[in-house]
Amino acid sequence: MIRISIDAMGGDHGPQTILPALAQVAERRGDVRFLIYGREEAIRPVLEKHPRIAAVSQVFHCDVMVKMDDKPSAALRHGRWKSSMWKAIEAVKTGEADACVSAGNTGALMAMSKFCLRTMANIERPAIACIWPTLRSESVVLDVGATIGADAQQLTDFAILGAAMARALFEIERPTVGLLNIGVEEVKGQEEVKDAGRMLKASNLASLDYIGFVEGDDIGKGTSDVVVTEGFAGNIALKTAEGTAKQMASYLRSAMSRTLMSRIGYVLAKGAFDFLREKMDPRRSNGGVFLGLNGIVVKSHGGTDAEGFAAAIEVAYDMVRNRLLDRIEADLDLFHAKYPQSAGLGPEDEAEDTDIGTDA
Amino acid sequence: MIRISIDAMGGDHGPQTILPALAQVAERRGDVRFLIYGREEAIRPVLEKHPRIAAVSQVFHCDVMVKMDDKPSAALRHGRWKSSMWKAIEAVKTGEADACVSAGNTGALMAMSKFCLRTMANIERPAIACIWPTLRSESVVLDVGATIGADAQQLTDFAILGAAMARALFEIERPTVGLLNIGVEEVKGQEEVKDAGRMLKASNLASLDYIGFVEGDDIGKGTSDVVVTEGFAGNIALKTAEGTAKQMASYLRSAMSRTLMSRIGYVLAKGAFDFLREKMDPRRSNGGVFLGLNGIVVKSHGGTDAEGFAAAIEVAYDMVRNRLLDRIEADLDLFHAKYPQSAGLGPEDEAEDTDIGTDA
Repeated sequence: MIRISIDAMGGDHGPQTILPALAQVAERRGDVRFLIYGREEAIRPVLEKHPRIAAVSQVFHCDVMVKMDDKPSAALRHGRWKSSMWKAIEAVKTGEADACVSAGNTGALMAMSKFCLRTMANIERPAIACIWPTLRSESVVLDVGATIGADAQQLTDFAILGAAMARALFEIERPTVGLLNIGVEEVKGQEEVKDAGRMLKASNLASLDYIGFVEGDDIGKGTSDVVVTEGFAGNIALKTAEGTAKQMASYLRSAMSRTLMSRIGYVLAKGAFDFLREKMDPRRSNGGVFLGLNGIVVKSHGGTDAEGFAAAIEVAYDMVRNRLLDRIEADLDLFHAKYPQSAGLGPEDEAEDTDIGTDA
Repeated sequence: MIRISIDAMGGDHGPQTILPALAQVAERRGDVRFLIYGREEAIRPVLEKHPRIAAVSQVFHCDVMVKMDDKPSAALRHGRWKSSMWKAIEAVKTGEADACVSAGNTGALMAMSKFCLRTMANIERPAIACIWPTLRSESVVLDVGATIGADAQQLTDFAILGAAMARALFEIERPTVGLLNIGVEEVKGQEEVKDAGRMLKASNLASLDYIGFVEGDDIGKGTSDVVVTEGFAGNIALKTAEGTAKQMASYLRSAMSRTLMSRIGYVLAKGAFDFLREKMDPRRSNGGVFLGLNGIVVKSHGGTDAEGFAAAIEVAYDMVRNRLLDRIEADLDLFHAKYPQSAGLGPEDEAEDTDIGTDA
């Protein structure tokens, strides 16, 4: 049985969108159970319409909810211990749930997840990983915005975390890993990327196959199963790709409606366009995974629909089923046995958490 | 009369591709003249086939050429004073040419351009700006890879340089400028982006309209006429967008050939697809512009064809005609009159140039 805790109040549309997603997942996965956190008066009416969900769920009433525009510090101040987001994360900590899914705001969800679950031993910073559709299949790209900047050790940790996720999700034995870099030779800076490359090469891990540097256009090609970068460049790459995909779709729409002939062509090729739309559907790859914490938390896009939220739940489900955390722990142990000097900085990390909790 | 110096030996295909581009430009621009640098024995046969070019060109023989895979330091060592790339740049310095265009390798072209032309007074570092097609029209994005990292002052300089280019190319009176950032609140780091934002806001320049932070997906939307970022993130954004566009095109091709019906639809809508292909044609926006130097240098994509190289020449032409350098100088003077503490670091900059020139 796989138990997923759900923050029913997150996202732009709340329980009306989130709960029907549970029905979709329950349909496909017989062994899934849900712990639903949120306002009972908003949840109950939806459950009454979906007896399928009620049969596999427990509802826990929470008065407080984190708003989509709450700053992380504000969310922690007024939402810690009691909000639906906190409670859903806490269920993972207490072992009542195997993973948590929320469509709430990213900053708040990360701050609460760090505060509640703490980073894993040997990991300094968590990362947000996304599933990136490629010409070959799909890749894991991280960090897409948990923190800005990363040193060589953190990039190496991201490589291990991302490879474990790729193994769990794509069921690849030894995923290929590339470090995102720019192709200009002899440019000063980014020493941390070069150092991370040297560390990955030298450690020659059984859990991943380090293939060297990759560039921005390699992501969409699917040159490696995992692409590692720090959060600023990763976030910009992700959003730029989203923007470009929308731009292409818009060009295509306006091209197809230009003339009578092209409109007829569109009707005839409608099956092809439906196929294309499905290929490009951002809901298919919905779900930012928080890696490096003592628990699995998946962030769904805030504006997604039931189908998109269901995809995020399935990501969480697959990672639990494929024992993501055990894999990560084993991989980290192996790596840090080779590099004992690079143990995680527990106390500093806690200090950072406290910062987020107390700053105005 | 506008005089463009051409490195005929740069690029993947050399004079056979580059010289026909000159004929195309000469056709469209009656007042253009070319100074062609390269191996005479490779250039003459092409000119004989294109009397149109010969009429508006002078050829200067150079024995040495910079290879596409030369490291910048190696290119400087064996190509300085004598290669076709160096000579073409030098023609701008001596005033024989108004701008230089090369399809040679980016690192070598930038190293030689810096060494020969030097950065402008008040500018610490040059940037590479590209023209990015957007849903609204086109934007200038910089830096896309001249250097990694940038402090607040350098980002502010990039804003001024990019805005001057947007005014020269798009003929907009007061271009809007956005600083590329990620949307996560309260994340540590990128203080330089926030500081640059404060400086741009406070300086309230007549030459640009600073609109605040933009994210990756704003580039394709065309939210601002100019998007400013440091070279690592900028290069990754550019290449990621190129990769995504290719990925979409590939999806579209395979979708349209899936069934007989879709193939018929494709034939009927062929005009629309041609329109789309033209919209997405990377040749249309070919030309990376080196900004911040005492002279205009435009880098064409190495693998482009004559049409693409012609587009890069037109970019150079437009910037000369619209007096890009005068605009930049005036804007910089205005800005640095307000911020006199932030004058450029001439000597340090020269030291860096020398580094490139002498390291092994």
